[in-house]
Amino acid sequence: MIDNRTAAIEYARSQHERYVNDLIELVKIPSVSTDPNYVADIRRAAEHVQKKLKAIGMENIRLIETPRHPVLYADHLHAGPDKPTVIIYGHYDVQPAEPLDLWHTPPYEPTLRDGKLYGRGASDMKGQVMASLHAVEAVMKHGGLPVNIKWLIEGEEEIGSPNLLKVIRDNKDLLTADFALNPDGGILGEDLPAIIYGLRGLAYFEVHVSGPDHDLHSGIYGGSVLNPAAELARLIAGMHDANGHITLPGFYDKVQALDAEERAELGRLPTDEAYYMKHTGVPMLWGEKGYSPVEHTGARPTLEVNGLLSGFTGEGAKTVLPAKAMAKISTRLVPNQHPDDVEKSLIKYMEQNARSAVTWSVKQITSGNPASITSRDSDGVKALSKAMQSVWGKRPLFRREGGSVPVVYQMKEELGIDSVLTGFGLPDDNLHAPNEKLTLGPWYKGIEALIHFFHNL
Amino acid sequence: MIDNRTAAIEYARSQHERYVNDLIELVKIPSVSTDPNYVADIRRAAEHVQKKLKAIGMENIRLIETPRHPVLYADHLHAGPDKPTVIIYGHYDVQPAEPLDLWHTPPYEPTLRDGKLYGRGASDMKGQVMASLHAVEAVMKHGGLPVNIKWLIEGEEEIGSPNLLKVIRDNKDLLTADFALNPDGGILGEDLPAIIYGLRGLAYFEVHVSGPDHDLHSGIYGGSVLNPAAELARLIAGMHDANGHITLPGFYDKVQALDAEERAELGRLPTDEAYYMKHTGVPMLWGEKGYSPVEHTGARPTLEVNGLLSGFTGEGAKTVLPAKAMAKISTRLVPNQHPDDVEKSLIKYMEQNARSAVTWSVKQITSGNPASITSRDSDGVKALSKAMQSVWGKRPLFRREGGSVPVVYQMKEELGIDSVLTGFGLPDDNLHAPNEKLTLGPWYKGIEALIHFFHNL
Repeated sequence: MIDNRTAAIEYARSQHERYVNDLIELVKIPSVSTDPNYVADIRRAAEHVQKKLKAIGMENIRLIETPRHPVLYADHLHAGPDKPTVIIYGHYDVQPAEPLDLWHTPPYEPTLRDGKLYGRGASDMKGQVMASLHAVEAVMKHGGLPVNIKWLIEGEEEIGSPNLLKVIRDNKDLLTADFALNPDGGILGEDLPAIIYGLRGLAYFEVHVSGPDHDLHSGIYGGSVLNPAAELARLIAGMHDANGHITLPGFYDKVQALDAEERAELGRLPTDEAYYMKHTGVPMLWGEKGYSPVEHTGARPTLEVNGLLSGFTGEGAKTVLPAKAMAKISTRLVPNQHPDDVEKSLIKYMEQNARSAVTWSVKQITSGNPASITSRDSDGVKALSKAMQSVWGKRPLFRREGGSVPVVYQMKEELGIDSVLTGFGLPDDNLHAPNEKLTLGPWYKGIEALIHFFHNL
Repeated sequence: MIDNRTAAIEYARSQHERYVNDLIELVKIPSVSTDPNYVADIRRAAEHVQKKLKAIGMENIRLIETPRHPVLYADHLHAGPDKPTVIIYGHYDVQPAEPLDLWHTPPYEPTLRDGKLYGRGASDMKGQVMASLHAVEAVMKHGGLPVNIKWLIEGEEEIGSPNLLKVIRDNKDLLTADFALNPDGGILGEDLPAIIYGLRGLAYFEVHVSGPDHDLHSGIYGGSVLNPAAELARLIAGMHDANGHITLPGFYDKVQALDAEERAELGRLPTDEAYYMKHTGVPMLWGEKGYSPVEHTGARPTLEVNGLLSGFTGEGAKTVLPAKAMAKISTRLVPNQHPDDVEKSLIKYMEQNARSAVTWSVKQITSGNPASITSRDSDGVKALSKAMQSVWGKRPLFRREGGSVPVVYQMKEELGIDSVLTGFGLPDDNLHAPNEKLTLGPWYKGIEALIHFFHNL
């Protein structure tokens, strides 16, 4: 007699056709969160997932209303108090499909071609939500769930999760858990399973420099006053030294150094210099001295100019000496750096460096969020790593991603729990773009990996 | 029996009421060159001035047609070949009067209040054209003109004289002369007569810096590529040293040093630091070390950022690492600097300083023009200086202006002649603004000064 784990895996292998048909049903619903025209569809998507959760035996199912799109909650808490409780995070909304004329088949008529399912949301992340659901079902049907699970599936991820924080805050008791599984990431290739254990934080600023009280004629006054655009440029230039280190006072004070073991682990990633050259199109990479591109983008803090605006920017020539200049400047943070500390550093830098012939202001224009990191020795990461090894026959890659995922930070802040990020989409799935697709091979493997994951916990 | 000069002066003093009425007639015509709705009015203004020139005895009067507004030519060449020939330059077009609600009396219903005539164009420069015409008439009526004169009065000055260069080029023989009188400047106070003997030149560039082949996500790629906006900022920052000197290689090679005599002369100007503070509203002046504001703005070359644009500049935060960045950068030039040399300097600077992780381009986006300077020892300047001394009882101030006047450069290039710039408007005449006015006291003095000027030549 085979064990429950093996039985669940075999069951999952027998269900591929149904899995695809189930996913097709969900992808057919145009649950575009940003567009008021789809408000009925997005509720239909929420209710569709709700029905699916009910069908596999989830309990306490509810739609938590928000000012916009509801958050779906469900749980199954019968593994016992000595077993871990896992929140499975997901979102049922999708990006708009436009430009429609670039789709080879209609975005909401999911189409199978060459082992890939084409349709908006197939990979991001309806496919990942359904993979989780299928894995849970398979485990439940074969001996029952060895862990307690709670589902938190929102409908506003593609518009920046404006209401999720409040839902989490208002439902802290409901959402107690040991950690979260967030399958909204991806793997690096069909044969390159990956776990994201770190995300950078973000602090985003507007810097304004003002000089004259109105735009001046550059002939009549040019030479007698400090040009705010030139002064802003000088200030920006001084924010990095020649080695690409950031010069804001105290910026690195709390930054954790990378140890040799972690650098070796990150060195396994296939995203080498050639990868970054190809995906950015630059004539030459450039980053902080002493670190690799993978470290530059995932494990080291950065400061970027996101926008610049001053004076006359239209066609032709206008001989204006601008009254003011503005830069959008953001920093990506690594563990232990806090956005408010960075704001203090930036203000101190301006105090020390801006000349008195101009005035200036610094404003943090988003609430920002610190970085998050989940120990690679945590139960969740170990269980998933082992699961991927079972399915792919190799250790997964461990990634630190450069961007921020607000829900990860919100769960850390409000619930005190770390997140394990994974997913079974591929880098070329065309997320947010025409012809989004899900490659079924690694998706089936992902369902098996999640079955192992629940059994490994 | 009184001499011709004195008789002309006395005659002019007797004509004040008629002079004002004549000017009112001309100001009533809304000759707005930029606005197609006024195309009939602008021709009416040209024909009005044409009639006035005919009435005082000018000859060879013609409207030289252009693709837009005609240039008025007339001459009076009976002083003999041993006498100098002077081109009197003027323009009969005006700026738009908008915003109309800020005018205390309608812009085209000239109104006298407190010895000032309010109306669009009263000072800039219908008043100056009529002052020249009245002076010539007074001299002619009392012994005849002791010089040969040619009038060149255009209708497109307020839109940048797009067709004047071709008119000058096509009529070189007609326009041979010894120098030009250009009364489109002004004096610095009712009791501060002034002659402008120098103008700065202009070279205007767009600098583009490009990095990635598309805008990147600053989280995913930030840290691995050189940010084009940051690199542009660094390049701009390096264009000046800490003393405000321009660092472009060879930029100062041909710059003429200011001698002590000229610096003393410029030091007589009342435009001191307080003046520049007041008119710019800056918290502190800032300029090239070792020079005064008057020198900064008139006699030293400058480099200004006129515009900056990169990435996301709207409301809020977008975490983009921009693919490219653009700056509009212009230099004001002093005698012997040529725009094409400056372009070479700027390109060399970029070659020496821009990093290989970006690409860049430099484009001169206007044809540019060198500086122009008229010797203070030239016959024209000396005659006008002596004339002003006679009327105001003091030496005029000698100014070098920071801006460019294309016609001055065009006459130098095409006709080989220098210009003497003056005018009888005041700094607070509200040129190009609501409630433009002409203060009659200095205007009457200006007519007398021009009578002396013609006799002094």
